[in-house]
Amino acid sequence: MTPPAVEAIDFFYLSMPRIEDIGDGSQDMLLVRVRAGDHTGWGECEASPLPTIAGLVCPMSHSACKPVAASVLGQRLADPADIARISRDVRANSLDLLQAAHVLSGIEIALWDLLGRRSEVPVHTLLGYPRAYPKTAYASALFGDTPAETEAKAAKVRADGFRAAKFGWGPYGRGDVAADAEQVRAARAGLGPDLHLLVDAGTVWGEDVEAATARLPALEECDVTWLEEPFETGALRAYAELARRCRGVRLAGGEGAHHPHLAQHLVDYGGIGFVQIDTGRIGGIGPAREVAAYAVEAGVTFVNHTFTSPLALSASLQPYAGLAEHVLCEFPVEASPLARAATTTPMVPDADGQVCLPDAPGLGLEVSPDALRPYLRDVEITVDGTTLYRTPDLTT
Amino acid sequence: MTPPAVEAIDFFYLSMPRIEDIGDGSQDMLLVRVRAGDHTGWGECEASPLPTIAGLVCPMSHSACKPVAASVLGQRLADPADIARISRDVRANSLDLLQAAHVLSGIEIALWDLLGRRSEVPVHTLLGYPRAYPKTAYASALFGDTPAETEAKAAKVRADGFRAAKFGWGPYGRGDVAADAEQVRAARAGLGPDLHLLVDAGTVWGEDVEAATARLPALEECDVTWLEEPFETGALRAYAELARRCRGVRLAGGEGAHHPHLAQHLVDYGGIGFVQIDTGRIGGIGPAREVAAYAVEAGVTFVNHTFTSPLALSASLQPYAGLAEHVLCEFPVEASPLARAATTTPMVPDADGQVCLPDAPGLGLEVSPDALRPYLRDVEITVDGTTLYRTPDLTT
Repeated sequence: MTPPAVEAIDFFYLSMPRIEDIGDGSQDMLLVRVRAGDHTGWGECEASPLPTIAGLVCPMSHSACKPVAASVLGQRLADPADIARISRDVRANSLDLLQAAHVLSGIEIALWDLLGRRSEVPVHTLLGYPRAYPKTAYASALFGDTPAETEAKAAKVRADGFRAAKFGWGPYGRGDVAADAEQVRAARAGLGPDLHLLVDAGTVWGEDVEAATARLPALEECDVTWLEEPFETGALRAYAELARRCRGVRLAGGEGAHHPHLAQHLVDYGGIGFVQIDTGRIGGIGPAREVAAYAVEAGVTFVNHTFTSPLALSASLQPYAGLAEHVLCEFPVEASPLARAATTTPMVPDADGQVCLPDAPGLGLEVSPDALRPYLRDVEITVDGTTLYRTPDLTT
Repeated sequence: MTPPAVEAIDFFYLSMPRIEDIGDGSQDMLLVRVRAGDHTGWGECEASPLPTIAGLVCPMSHSACKPVAASVLGQRLADPADIARISRDVRANSLDLLQAAHVLSGIEIALWDLLGRRSEVPVHTLLGYPRAYPKTAYASALFGDTPAETEAKAAKVRADGFRAAKFGWGPYGRGDVAADAEQVRAARAGLGPDLHLLVDAGTVWGEDVEAATARLPALEECDVTWLEEPFETGALRAYAELARRCRGVRLAGGEGAHHPHLAQHLVDYGGIGFVQIDTGRIGGIGPAREVAAYAVEAGVTFVNHTFTSPLALSASLQPYAGLAEHVLCEFPVEASPLARAATTTPMVPDADGQVCLPDAPGLGLEVSPDALRPYLRDVEITVDGTTLYRTPDLTT
């Protein structure tokens, strides 16, 4: 019997009718469907949709700058080793196509989903985890425009049953030190003393270690578990210097990593205590699993990064599902109607604020084409009159 | 008087009629034209054209994932500080658009060209260099399929007056250690004892330090100046370990860097002796100049990376034009007819194998729209029936 091969890769660009100029990454979505044999798998790229679609289908530039589809279509897909091989081929054949890691991520996730469905086991089982531990969901929210607004948001998070919350972006880091301290105190006041409080600076200080250091006293005073992304992903010296100045709070980063190396550098040279991985950017579930294993070795805690749909959330939890001591998980509480429409099966925290991966095969969720259709964008890319891409049919 | 602002950014995708599956990056080209006031500037992205065009014009996804054009069009362009500000804005506003660095690179180069033309000085003058030193061109070529072919290529390089040559890709690193040694000895035999010989492994060994170590004796025996890209850009531990095992030969890398940080990490943690920067990838001339200054501080030698047109060559030399002790420069000897057609003014080494930057304003070269027109690809990108991009007119 011929082993199954990847027969189709379909990308779907979906978005809210109106995109706001705010830090809410769930306003659009690049959904991926792959087919092999009689099976279908779904994934999602956490990426700008149009350049990512172009990276799938673009003409070859040279031997190390090929479209991602060229290294995936027609490839054997019988077991997880095939996914690893396909990923290596994409990295090598699209070495000079910068967007390739984002293109690959959604495809790789969909390949795992497909393999899990075919084998009738969850993806985390294929990754070698005997069981999936519940994770403590942290409500991921934007800071309010005022401390009062932040405190109200925090109080609601607590009332909703969450055991942890992260506040980020908005005005934080853009005003003075005192204003930022008020925001953090407001968040702590709203949460009460017993919940985890996390703060996300969204790279606002560039490489300015002193600006970040000035915020540490308020963070320590409010028992903040981590300070996330004080600097850009690559500012390793700044990370290392700030890490040396922290007492209780630890640094978190890594969401921008589009290769396991970049996350490992934050661990090895940046002194972070939490490594945050977005499976929709780093190349998918396999590379994220690799970082999780590296984190265990290094005594660093792995956390997912996700801000979009239940599909992306499930994909982001698989890589560390079996690590009992890595307990926190990002949970987007302000996801758009689009993100909430993506799957018929929701993923929500239980009464104790814990999120459990579904037991169903693959990613364990059913995509809802009918609910998504109103958000579908109609894209066409032509070169010299030849159509390289046209939005495929979502329902067939 | 209102200071001039960026009024237009035009991207042109050009390619040879047929793209071969070989490591020749000059088979296509993404040419950039910018206009501000009465002036025009030209640049080139070293990038896959279609995803790069999409990154210029794509719809916004959220506040940190905007199209690159949004941070450039309409911006004040009076002096070099404006270019730095525009670049910072692109990095921040397109933080989650991975391809953005490649999109930015060609635009940034064109902005420098425009400023230089308006001020009637070469770009290197704007960068603060009192003069541009001639560089020793190394002929950049692919290894032959056999040692005899490589030796013939090397003999021709010598006969053509070059004082240095680099051989890379092709069969090197893909066969056994003895076969690779024969290739290196053939290159040395063809060049004679007095020319610089450089070897490019094209990341062929992944992260396998032992595989690379096994090639060191032949490289040392043949007095090779550098071994380039034994590993992927991010494999810093592998670089550092191999660097410790080198006696005479030094490591070179950095061409894949799409941010100055990535090049700095190779210096700080990877132990490289030569840092190779492609201005068409790292974000343009400003970021490359930043790496050159960093290299001087660190005692590392800066080298350009370029494999395409004279326009790209000029852009790649400006960042270290004034560094007298950083003498080598990459010169593509096997550039495609497309790359050679790009400018009316060629850039060729003199009888001593030295390349000099033109004295003319900006990048010092005139683009030839008429010669390029046969290579122009006709691209159209539409979303929901609205055309976001259509190939502009090259001649107006």
